[in-house]
Amino acid sequence: MTFNENLNQLIRVKKSFLCVGIDPDLGKMPAFLPQDADGIYQFSKAIIEATHHLAVAFKPNLAFFECAGSAGLQVLERLSSEKPDDVLWLLDGKRGDIGNTAEKYAAAMFGPLAADAVTLNPYMGFDAVEPFISDSRHGAFVLGLTSNKSAVDFQHLQTGSGTLFEQVAKKVRRWNTNNNCGLVVGATESKGLKKIRSLVPDLPFLVPGIGAQGGALEPVLKFGRDESGAGLLVNVGRDILYASSSEDFAVAATAKAEKYTQLMNDYI
Amino acid sequence: MTFNENLNQLIRVKKSFLCVGIDPDLGKMPAFLPQDADGIYQFSKAIIEATHHLAVAFKPNLAFFECAGSAGLQVLERLSSEKPDDVLWLLDGKRGDIGNTAEKYAAAMFGPLAADAVTLNPYMGFDAVEPFISDSRHGAFVLGLTSNKSAVDFQHLQTGSGTLFEQVAKKVRRWNTNNNCGLVVGATESKGLKKIRSLVPDLPFLVPGIGAQGGALEPVLKFGRDESGAGLLVNVGRDILYASSSEDFAVAATAKAEKYTQLMNDYI
Repeated sequence: MTFNENLNQLIRVKKSFLCVGIDPDLGKMPAFLPQDADGIYQFSKAIIEATHHLAVAFKPNLAFFECAGSAGLQVLERLSSEKPDDVLWLLDGKRGDIGNTAEKYAAAMFGPLAADAVTLNPYMGFDAVEPFISDSRHGAFVLGLTSNKSAVDFQHLQTGSGTLFEQVAKKVRRWNTNNNCGLVVGATESKGLKKIRSLVPDLPFLVPGIGAQGGALEPVLKFGRDESGAGLLVNVGRDILYASSSEDFAVAATAKAEKYTQLMNDYI
Repeated sequence: MTFNENLNQLIRVKKSFLCVGIDPDLGKMPAFLPQDADGIYQFSKAIIEATHHLAVAFKPNLAFFECAGSAGLQVLERLSSEKPDDVLWLLDGKRGDIGNTAEKYAAAMFGPLAADAVTLNPYMGFDAVEPFISDSRHGAFVLGLTSNKSAVDFQHLQTGSGTLFEQVAKKVRRWNTNNNCGLVVGATESKGLKKIRSLVPDLPFLVPGIGAQGGALEPVLKFGRDESGAGLLVNVGRDILYASSSEDFAVAATAKAEKYTQLMNDYI
């Protein structure tokens, strides 16, 4: 089964588009947890256990582990080796480099970090993406239109035919010969989301920006799904992770995740 | 002193534009070395000791450490803590992410990995770059025109005023209010290099692609320097690292690096 088939099957089985962003931030984690790599492990592990039955995927953000150095990466390796069987493991590193370097990043992601899929940056073009998508069981979500303010700096530039983000979307669709490519499309830009969906009816979208970043869920569910009604991962990070800063943080995370999946149910 | 001032002073003192790319590849390292993280350490350490008097900077490529997992990152942390005083430490990770994530990457690079400068990807715009350049002592080289074949996919797209890579070059110049921004411009594209240098006469360029990737040195030295005659880092990786596959690899690396710096001498 290809990555995209696997993703869509899981969306239907779990009746969920939820992707939980694992961004363990020492400054925001409950204060009773150790303020070190061990605390990052305990927090992430508890969030994963509290939400995996509701989520289609977890999206650990590599920066939040790397900032604790090799001890942080050890935590991510441990979480990777212990990941639940019923979710996809989507490593968010937004890498992008020339072929021989991209191969090393792919070896890191699909090796010790056991990724099912990764996020990638399109700036360097196809050969920076190729090593991640040569095996159809592994997926890659390429940045299309991002949810940050400065996305306008380059992504909205007009080219000969459409904006840069539209060109990226169309190219990624052509790269999808193994049915394992997707696009990152920010939720804060529902006009852009509609536009990209019209150009790319068939690829899965990973949509960050819901909750803390201000994106609304309903337009994403309305306009973000693929032509089959699936093909969508809605990432929620801070809103679930930091639903409570007390000892009940995991219970609060479950409750918050349930709210999201209930809203999603009408669209599956 | 700002990062760019520091860089240019070092170029003049050492009469060199040489940046040695630290890309320790188990498949290419001398076979007598251990084929593991310890071998990566021994190899990198020997290359650094053999060439630091000739180089202005070392550019460890993060992928080549990350592919060995947390043990690989531990090696990079050790090399970072032992780096020689007379060179800059330029971490090549090409990161690029939204503000709160970029802050975590910056904490990783300038914290346990002791970077003087980093490479960054421009796709997400200014707020993905800002956390890396807020301290003027730290530098950032943003991808402009890269040396890989697929650079044409997006970087050469025509926008309203010039290509995408020209737009990036002009924007990065505007971001350079702390005199610590530079651009990555591939050596395999000497037309592009001339073009970007005409648009950006004052920022330092990091030029990869010499040697194994096929770029020639002379046009880079001719057209790559800034208006003061400095502002250039010529990265050489494989050609120096793998100059010999025997026990004399470090001696061979010194000899190869000397050849490069001799050719550079005429241009300083």
